[in-house]
Amino acid sequence: MTRFDSATTVTKVGSGHYTAQLDGGYLIGAALNGGYLMAVLQRAALLEAERPHALAVSSSYHFLRPGAGGPAEVAATVLKAGRTITTVQVTLYQNDKPLVSGLIAIAEFDAAATPVYQSEPVEIPPIEQCHRLDPRERQAENADFLERVDQYYSPATYELLGDPGTEKSPDLRGHVRLSELDGGDPEDPTLFLPLAIDALPPVVSALLPWNWAPTVELTWHMRAVPEAGPLAFHARSDTVADGWFDETVDLWDTKGRLVAQSRQLARIGR
Amino acid sequence: MTRFDSATTVTKVGSGHYTAQLDGGYLIGAALNGGYLMAVLQRAALLEAERPHALAVSSSYHFLRPGAGGPAEVAATVLKAGRTITTVQVTLYQNDKPLVSGLIAIAEFDAAATPVYQSEPVEIPPIEQCHRLDPRERQAENADFLERVDQYYSPATYELLGDPGTEKSPDLRGHVRLSELDGGDPEDPTLFLPLAIDALPPVVSALLPWNWAPTVELTWHMRAVPEAGPLAFHARSDTVADGWFDETVDLWDTKGRLVAQSRQLARIGR
Repeated sequence: MTRFDSATTVTKVGSGHYTAQLDGGYLIGAALNGGYLMAVLQRAALLEAERPHALAVSSSYHFLRPGAGGPAEVAATVLKAGRTITTVQVTLYQNDKPLVSGLIAIAEFDAAATPVYQSEPVEIPPIEQCHRLDPRERQAENADFLERVDQYYSPATYELLGDPGTEKSPDLRGHVRLSELDGGDPEDPTLFLPLAIDALPPVVSALLPWNWAPTVELTWHMRAVPEAGPLAFHARSDTVADGWFDETVDLWDTKGRLVAQSRQLARIGR
Repeated sequence: MTRFDSATTVTKVGSGHYTAQLDGGYLIGAALNGGYLMAVLQRAALLEAERPHALAVSSSYHFLRPGAGGPAEVAATVLKAGRTITTVQVTLYQNDKPLVSGLIAIAEFDAAATPVYQSEPVEIPPIEQCHRLDPRERQAENADFLERVDQYYSPATYELLGDPGTEKSPDLRGHVRLSELDGGDPEDPTLFLPLAIDALPPVVSALLPWNWAPTVELTWHMRAVPEAGPLAFHARSDTVADGWFDETVDLWDTKGRLVAQSRQLARIGR
């Protein structure tokens, strides 16, 4: 079992009631990374749905409070168990207060399906041409997290992250994978998707000085079962205004298939 | 009061408990339009939040069952009343079964804020150059709905809707407004946003034969307070595969500001 699999383990302790031990190694600043929390909630939702071959295909989360390392609980309720889709409502609690509340649609998925239509993918240089975000150079305060999730940025966007300016565009491209220390790939590559899709620095870090940017809402959809290996990412924003910004992230697997797409609305920290 | 304002009225009948009278005029085929249902839920959430100047800034919904005209109930629960954001969980019931469950983040909004960044808008011809989707020509079965929401399509995308083919792209552009019969604009232009963002035919109608396409999940974010008047729209899809498709819709007001952005995951009907 990789460290990631172990850190996202949930244990059923009653009807719709799970416990987890949150790993402080996923802290970004003073709050646990939202993608890590989504992975924990996804595991509880899949167990509660009792459909062993089903996957979380559409997940929407509202983030209420920051999470810390230590014990936590998950409440999971099946809202509807349909023929195609089972919908589960999940809430993560810590010290009896809700941290994250979400709704997850679960369904079977044909891993080999050929798309009827796929939009033109953006250009992302191969991982060998990208720069690893190395905490010895930047983001030393998040070294534990960057030890868990390897991030490689295209030369152009690595520059943006280092020296953001108002003339520049909130657009980040590169590759992300579970770190070599964690085995490089999780047992179940679909479980890495929620972490990967929210593991990057806020996309406004390419536009404004680097800052804490709490997610208000994040929805992500799984579109294909990923191959093992690093995932290519493209993160961008359409509008940054009045302290709010949107961030859209797409992930492709090594076969060039869109495996996940997310959008979040977040606040610019003060 | 316009017909739309009246059709989305909710009445508080107890703590976190509202009633509504759903208007069968918003049916698309055999199911009430999801945008109309979101508008009803939004009104209940805003009442429950008890913040008169706040707006629904981020709303995510999972659609469980089709709705019909007639009485319905809304359960609304405040998950967290924070300084900046109040988060409300809402569920719409009909005949004691949940139809739609959602999470709505509510906050104040500076209508006059100038964006720090806005991406290049796509080209959408002015409304005078667009074709109205006229139920006498197409979509006669949804004439009541099209009497409530006027839809104007760019010449290129009106063609696509009429004669979809696999060589074509799921991309629709034009303008949408509350119908002249309904007064052209609602009392509160922000309340039209959830209806407008889900009023268009499924974007895959520009790619595949026109069909029923049930929404599984839809999230939309409000980014600015719209001016009165028609809203320009751009709808597109990134991937259509294995019976699932994503649809992203942006709306701009007459001042050219991005006022709302949505993404949904939906099924292709059989």
